[in-house]
Amino acid sequence: MRARNKPWADDFLKENNHIVELTPFDHKDKWKTVFNDNNPIHLEIGTGKGQFITGMAKQHKDVNFIGIEIAKSIIVSAVQKVSDSEQGNIRLINEDAKDLREFFGENEVEKIYLNFSDPWPKSRHEKRRLSYNTFLEQYRDILTENGEIILKTDNKSLFEYSLVSFSKFGMELDEVLLNLHEENDPLNVMTEYEEKFSEKGQAIYRCKASFKKQKKD
Amino acid sequence: MRARNKPWADDFLKENNHIVELTPFDHKDKWKTVFNDNNPIHLEIGTGKGQFITGMAKQHKDVNFIGIEIAKSIIVSAVQKVSDSEQGNIRLINEDAKDLREFFGENEVEKIYLNFSDPWPKSRHEKRRLSYNTFLEQYRDILTENGEIILKTDNKSLFEYSLVSFSKFGMELDEVLLNLHEENDPLNVMTEYEEKFSEKGQAIYRCKASFKKQKKD
Ligand SMILES: C[S@@+](CC[C@H](N)C(=O)[O-])C[C@H]1O[C@@H](n2cnc3c(N)ncnc32)[C@H](O)[C@@H]1O
Ligand SMILES: C[S@@+](CC[C@H](N)C(=O)[O-])C[C@H]1O[C@@H](n2cnc3c(N)ncnc32)[C@H](O)[C@@H]1O
Repeated sequence: MRARNKPWADDFLKENNHIVELTPFDHKDKWKTVFNDNNPIHLEIGTGKGQFITGMAKQHKDVNFIGIEIAKSIIVSAVQKVSDSEQGNIRLINEDAKDLREFFGENEVEKIYLNFSDPWPKSRHEKRRLSYNTFLEQYRDILTENGEIILKTDNKSLFEYSLVSFSKFGMELDEVLLNLHEENDPLNVMTEYEEKFSEKGQAIYRCKASFKKQKKD
Repeated sequence: MRARNKPWADDFLKENNHIVELTPFDHKDKWKTVFNDNNPIHLEIGTGKGQFITGMAKQHKDVNFIGIEIAKSIIVSAVQKVSDSEQGNIRLINEDAKDLREFFGENEVEKIYLNFSDPWPKSRHEKRRLSYNTFLEQYRDILTENGEIILKTDNKSLFEYSLVSFSKFGMELDEVLLNLHEENDPLNVMTEYEEKFSEKGQAIYRCKASFKKQKKD
């Protein structure tokens, strides 16, 4: 996902600090006060231009959505989309998702969405994949006991890798779909990448995985 | 896999009782004496016409292979193929695989192959799928501590189901491949169904799963 450098981006984000949380660290363990209700919190990592998170927020008004996106030149599009949607149940964070425990307390998040994450195909880059076990450790800590990770991708190798990585970490697979769009899930909200790849006829993979058993012990 | 009724089949199996074990119950916990060596035992369930098991037996002379096939009219072809191959490390069993613990003792088997098992697509037939949890209980009991199940299929739904079923049972996924033939695994031995479906351009799925952690506890 490329976007030209946008020198006005900093100002734009500051103007929209009702959408972009500029000091997300301050809200650790206190996100409920940010949204001012007790609704569950769902987190999307690598939000891109925000199509998924705004679509989900419209569909689930009783859920609060937080999107993390590292690229400033990309998150501005998401901010614009959230602003246009007039949904109050979305916040965005312009940070690297590598230290989620700095933003979220234990059990603070109910679901984590990994949508079309960068595949990092070379094995020497394995550690950068969002389903690598150091990331899984973070997810486990911030997720509630029945929390779940929902991963979608068009990338076969990343999907194969993620299933094995989840399993090796002791997670349980709740769902595996090798052609999501064949299932006609009426609640599925497409991401930008999902739209692009499925239009080309590529299969979209989805899985759901949870730490249930580990937390019970 | 259809084959015409073969009235001569009973006689043929009896004549070949050096290949077909007519009283497999007698060998429970004693298969090493049948093969007369200490080599590990690999089991294929639903052997069909025997292309896989003969190919594997040629490739791995230091492994003993046992194939179970319920259909008499089909196993005769496997017997013929094994006979032609002149491999001494293969035995066949013409029984239903539903009571494996009657044929095998605890930890007697090192690997179990499920090749293109009947998919039983209707959910009311779930219990008949060879990756349903009552089957998994049997596999766990007869497999060694580091034992493994290797499943191949062209059937998307059965593959999705099996991954979730293995995972829910607490098994660990060691490998997931969504297009086996793209990987060019030089050791892959094709089954009859595999040849047929891959010639038609269909993807072949493979996974490997183990009970490791459960046995360690
Ligand atoms: C391939 S794009 C997919 C975008 C969107 N999820 C979709 O499905 O259309 C991956 C996105 O993840 C972002 N990203 C990659 N690594 C990240 C990280 N460590 N923390 C936050 N965002 C990240 C990238 O900047 C990019 O926008
Ligand atoms: C779809 S065919 C696949 C044959 C072969 N494995 C291949 O890949 O070409 C499935 C085979 O499993 C056998 N089978 C099905 N259920 C079985 C059971 N419970 N016990 C033993 N064999 C079974 C069937 O008779 C059939 O030959």
